[in-house]
Amino acid sequence: MHIAKKIVLASCLSSLMTTTVYAGSEIETLIKMLHENGTVSDEQYGRLLAELEQTQQQSQQEKQAINHKLAEATKPSDVDVKIKEGGLTLATRDGAFTTKLGGRLQLDAASYSGNPEMGDGTEVRRAYLTLQGTMYHDWGYRFQYNFASTGANGKGILDAYLDYKGFDGVDLRVGHFKEPFTLQEATSDNFTTFTERATIAAFSPGRSIGVMASHGNQDWTWAAGVFGESVDSKGGTDDEGWGASTRVTMSPINQADKVVHLGLGVNYRNVDSANSIRFKQAPETHIAGVNIVDTGSIMNTNDILKLGAEFATVYGPFSAQAEYIASNVSRQGDSDLDFDGWYAEAGYFLTGESRQYSNGKFGRPKPHSIVGQGGIGAWQLALRYSTLDLTDGLIDGGEVDAMTLGLNWYPTSALRFTANYVDVLDVEGGPNDNQEPGVFQVRSQWAF
Amino acid sequence: MHIAKKIVLASCLSSLMTTTVYAGSEIETLIKMLHENGTVSDEQYGRLLAELEQTQQQSQQEKQAINHKLAEATKPSDVDVKIKEGGLTLATRDGAFTTKLGGRLQLDAASYSGNPEMGDGTEVRRAYLTLQGTMYHDWGYRFQYNFASTGANGKGILDAYLDYKGFDGVDLRVGHFKEPFTLQEATSDNFTTFTERATIAAFSPGRSIGVMASHGNQDWTWAAGVFGESVDSKGGTDDEGWGASTRVTMSPINQADKVVHLGLGVNYRNVDSANSIRFKQAPETHIAGVNIVDTGSIMNTNDILKLGAEFATVYGPFSAQAEYIASNVSRQGDSDLDFDGWYAEAGYFLTGESRQYSNGKFGRPKPHSIVGQGGIGAWQLALRYSTLDLTDGLIDGGEVDAMTLGLNWYPTSALRFTANYVDVLDVEGGPNDNQEPGVFQVRSQWAF
Amino acid sequence: MHIAKKIVLASCLSSLMTTTVYAGSEIETLIKMLHENGTVSDEQYGRLLAELEQTQQQSQQEKQAINHKLAEATKPSDVDVKIKEGGLTLATRDGAFTTKLGGRLQLDAASYSGNPEMGDGTEVRRAYLTLQGTMYHDWGYRFQYNFASTGANGKGILDAYLDYKGFDGVDLRVGHFKEPFTLQEATSDNFTTFTERATIAAFSPGRSIGVMASHGNQDWTWAAGVFGESVDSKGGTDDEGWGASTRVTMSPINQADKVVHLGLGVNYRNVDSANSIRFKQAPETHIAGVNIVDTGSIMNTNDILKLGAEFATVYGPFSAQAEYIASNVSRQGDSDLDFDGWYAEAGYFLTGESRQYSNGKFGRPKPHSIVGQGGIGAWQLALRYSTLDLTDGLIDGGEVDAMTLGLNWYPTSALRFTANYVDVLDVEGGPNDNQEPGVFQVRSQWAF
Repeated sequence: MHIAKKIVLASCLSSLMTTTVYAGSEIETLIKMLHENGTVSDEQYGRLLAELEQTQQQSQQEKQAINHKLAEATKPSDVDVKIKEGGLTLATRDGAFTTKLGGRLQLDAASYSGNPEMGDGTEVRRAYLTLQGTMYHDWGYRFQYNFASTGANGKGILDAYLDYKGFDGVDLRVGHFKEPFTLQEATSDNFTTFTERATIAAFSPGRSIGVMASHGNQDWTWAAGVFGESVDSKGGTDDEGWGASTRVTMSPINQADKVVHLGLGVNYRNVDSANSIRFKQAPETHIAGVNIVDTGSIMNTNDILKLGAEFATVYGPFSAQAEYIASNVSRQGDSDLDFDGWYAEAGYFLTGESRQYSNGKFGRPKPHSIVGQGGIGAWQLALRYSTLDLTDGLIDGGEVDAMTLGLNWYPTSALRFTANYVDVLDVEGGPNDNQEPGVFQVRSQWAF
Repeated sequence: MHIAKKIVLASCLSSLMTTTVYAGSEIETLIKMLHENGTVSDEQYGRLLAELEQTQQQSQQEKQAINHKLAEATKPSDVDVKIKEGGLTLATRDGAFTTKLGGRLQLDAASYSGNPEMGDGTEVRRAYLTLQGTMYHDWGYRFQYNFASTGANGKGILDAYLDYKGFDGVDLRVGHFKEPFTLQEATSDNFTTFTERATIAAFSPGRSIGVMASHGNQDWTWAAGVFGESVDSKGGTDDEGWGASTRVTMSPINQADKVVHLGLGVNYRNVDSANSIRFKQAPETHIAGVNIVDTGSIMNTNDILKLGAEFATVYGPFSAQAEYIASNVSRQGDSDLDFDGWYAEAGYFLTGESRQYSNGKFGRPKPHSIVGQGGIGAWQLALRYSTLDLTDGLIDGGEVDAMTLGLNWYPTSALRFTANYVDVLDVEGGPNDNQEPGVFQVRSQWAF
Repeated sequence: MHIAKKIVLASCLSSLMTTTVYAGSEIETLIKMLHENGTVSDEQYGRLLAELEQTQQQSQQEKQAINHKLAEATKPSDVDVKIKEGGLTLATRDGAFTTKLGGRLQLDAASYSGNPEMGDGTEVRRAYLTLQGTMYHDWGYRFQYNFASTGANGKGILDAYLDYKGFDGVDLRVGHFKEPFTLQEATSDNFTTFTERATIAAFSPGRSIGVMASHGNQDWTWAAGVFGESVDSKGGTDDEGWGASTRVTMSPINQADKVVHLGLGVNYRNVDSANSIRFKQAPETHIAGVNIVDTGSIMNTNDILKLGAEFATVYGPFSAQAEYIASNVSRQGDSDLDFDGWYAEAGYFLTGESRQYSNGKFGRPKPHSIVGQGGIGAWQLALRYSTLDLTDGLIDGGEVDAMTLGLNWYPTSALRFTANYVDVLDVEGGPNDNQEPGVFQVRSQWAF
């Protein structure tokens, strides 16, 4: 019985030993020693071991309680809240739900020289608020409003769409968003190199209500959609026009500081009852709102087909991009009209950053040093040549060539200050024949 | 002295024993044993017990410190942040303060057949942002703006009000909000069964600036208010019109899956200097904006009195509702005019859900399974018949009867995809006599 | 060797003793005693000490692990979230980044007596949402939109600017914001004593797009800026007008309940191509929108120079303020015109609060007791006399004198209910000669 008892106790203890700490082994060893040399009797020995066991169990329970509470206290919060660089970003721990409140403000001033008459002045070029998020991983939504370009019928609505990303290899979108066409439209105006896009923006389809399928990865992207008209085109007895647009891009090289981008786009629009189309463009400035070339309304229009070709590259601090667009206007009882244009631009980060590229477009720069943390931000010099020809057949919209010199300063990745000088080199035909103004414009911007 | 010392120590120890754990009893027992059998002397015994006591006190203090920190670490945060199903909901621990940022997006497309001419097209039907909250338990506020229906003078403002809920049995509200009248107006357009409300919406008083008292509980609700005009009716030398509205509802049965709802409403409006009123209605569609019946301006109008009767029921996946409204236009020097209309609708959730009801109106559905979590969402089939008569006396606004078939899919409780076919059965009189169009319309919606 | 061993062990133990707790000293003492009196052999003694040491180390490690986790669990969160009194305020622990979402709602009703004809009615006077924040300590941004005063071209945009606060002694601002001029304009309409500002608001420059340098401390503030026109003045072939504005304030006494404030302002505007200016003013009411005095368009205007003098004081619950503005209109081929006006007002908090003052303007009141927490809020009585003279030379805009009695109730610091009675004492000349209306108006307001 003595031996049996010892075995029972030993097994009992050994199981405890693996988990106990505070009631250390030295006390057990001491008790055994004192028992073996007779200082402690068998009866006393049994009592001591029983008490030891109880202590060890109690200790174990307390430690478990503490560890449970610690696990509770140190687990990540259900919702992670971030406000870095402005706005507000929230995400659940599992990433299934996210909500982001962002904004954008572009404050411009411009001074004009030469002809035509253009009014010097200031404007809030864009003032956006954006609410976007994810639900159950697969569903996404985005609403973006431009408070600086309001009017009747929801004119200020930009993005307003729903995404479904639950399928492999294809994302679906329904709502009001940009038709996929050209690199300079795909790239947010926060991150285009110059304050205004090149003159071929005259061919931009802009945003419409529609449905789109798309896919993007490291090597290439594609998107194809069918669209009605834009949000502020409303009702009446005539059917809306409709369109289709597709864009495919490839990036045979796509690294952090080395990129080659190639792209092709096709955009089709049937004007339906409207029966007319008009192309016009300001000389890469917005404040005065004066168009340097302008076809006026082209009547008897059936539909318009546009083709776009894109090239862009990044090599360390150097970047370049170029695009060409050809537009064909098909008319009832009149011959087709062909308009086109292209631009090429190059930029160089004096502070060594590389232009950020992903998913077929350029994105938010990452200054190597931050103003507010002892740094000087990112500085970029850039040059652009652009040309747009809106003259064909009997339509004399005019042709414009322009050169732009730009300086960008990004004190932080959310802030940008830009100065541009646009030198209109040549204007032939159109409403401003031989009038070649100069434009100096500056922008202060926050965007997050 | 030996005994006295022992007693002191024992009492001292017994008080410690209740709180100590790690410095287990076995060491104390061993010390006592060794003292009793003479291995440890009296002097040594005293020293050992003193050290034991100190150890136990120290251990106790450490445990208290840990437990204090644990309590600190595991207490709920001051502000609870939630983003489930989009938007953003915050609440203080005591519930005294809450803030919620929500939104709503409805993306529509419609195709029309038959006459009159109605333009096929797309639109952002509604784009709302909502900020609402609670302050000090008793005060509430809500601001909701429709970015898709903007214009001059704050036209897009929907809800803009302050609540006081500090009284027992009656809540007070001041601001711009819906006059209480009819079930289909009380129910958010997120949760009406069809994309557009039934044609008696022609009699809807909409939102006005005013004050209201109300109360709601499980069995019944009442609301009564006095109102000026709506937010976009502005200034000038003429006095605004004014109105009063009241609505009482009862729910003799009000369970999760069984509801009987009865309601009565009275709405009065004095048009004051405006001197005229006009009733008109589209055939349960919005995109084309063409009215199928229309009284034109009814001159010499003094005031309008409307009576509404409501019935609704839920029985498991089945639901039904019906309403009748009679309008009386009182005129100066002309006879009164009586217009009226009613509708009845029924819906059935193929996936077994019950329509959610509370506080005298229908609310957000709860799909049994979620798309994005392996489920299929909630699917509902519905049918509605509606009629509206705007012809009386010399006023020939016309009468319209229509039947609508609808399919609703709720992939999650925040998302809804709807397809409706409206068959206009009969149009008698009015500007579109005998013209009975068909309407096919679809909607994509997020709302949270 | 026995002694050496003891020394080694002792040093070993002493280093442990400073950090161990649970493996108390009594067990070590006991082991030593038993070794010394021969109950425990040298070999056994060594083993016991080794085990003791191991226990102590293990215990130490566990405690460190717990303390590490506790430190992790009790550290403040990265982003602090607050929703007190509505809205949403977030800040990173280091204060480098903040984001605040606020709002304001003013719900008004007015009733007019006497002549001219003014339409009784209601309105949403202001409905603002505000997003503002800080980035990297030094950069600030603010966007505020008035949903109640919308229209084309971003008319509702109020504040839209970027701040840089990284320089000592001077802050920089670029964007759309209030030109610094007069105390009643500097003070938010949330916190002006009456529902509408005094009639010299006719001279208010309002908000324009520009750049400003400023500085403020306990004793004084200054601000100076150069501006273009306001946000909704857009484009065209004519140059925008421009202006400059500066304001200096001193507060020789500036304590929580005792303030003396003195201020001077100079505002200049060159109307450029517009060539005209117009001053007009409603009788301290907004709903009807009828001007009681009105110069009409003053043609051939070159520029306008305004001078403003300010005085204000707080003495416990009593406060007073007064301002005078003189305006000089310089014309081409016509004589200069001089218009001016002033007001004086006094208020008294019946509930003992003091008007809050800082940085050259009045701010949010702090009720001593809160409605919703058993209190009655803050109650203030106030009286104002104002006069405005828009008649000079051949321009007969008229002169108006008015007296206003006001009662303010702040149930909480975010809520305000106001009743004002404006008694127009005298109107001489202008379009409403000898017509002296009475105005009763009430406002319900939340602002945070």
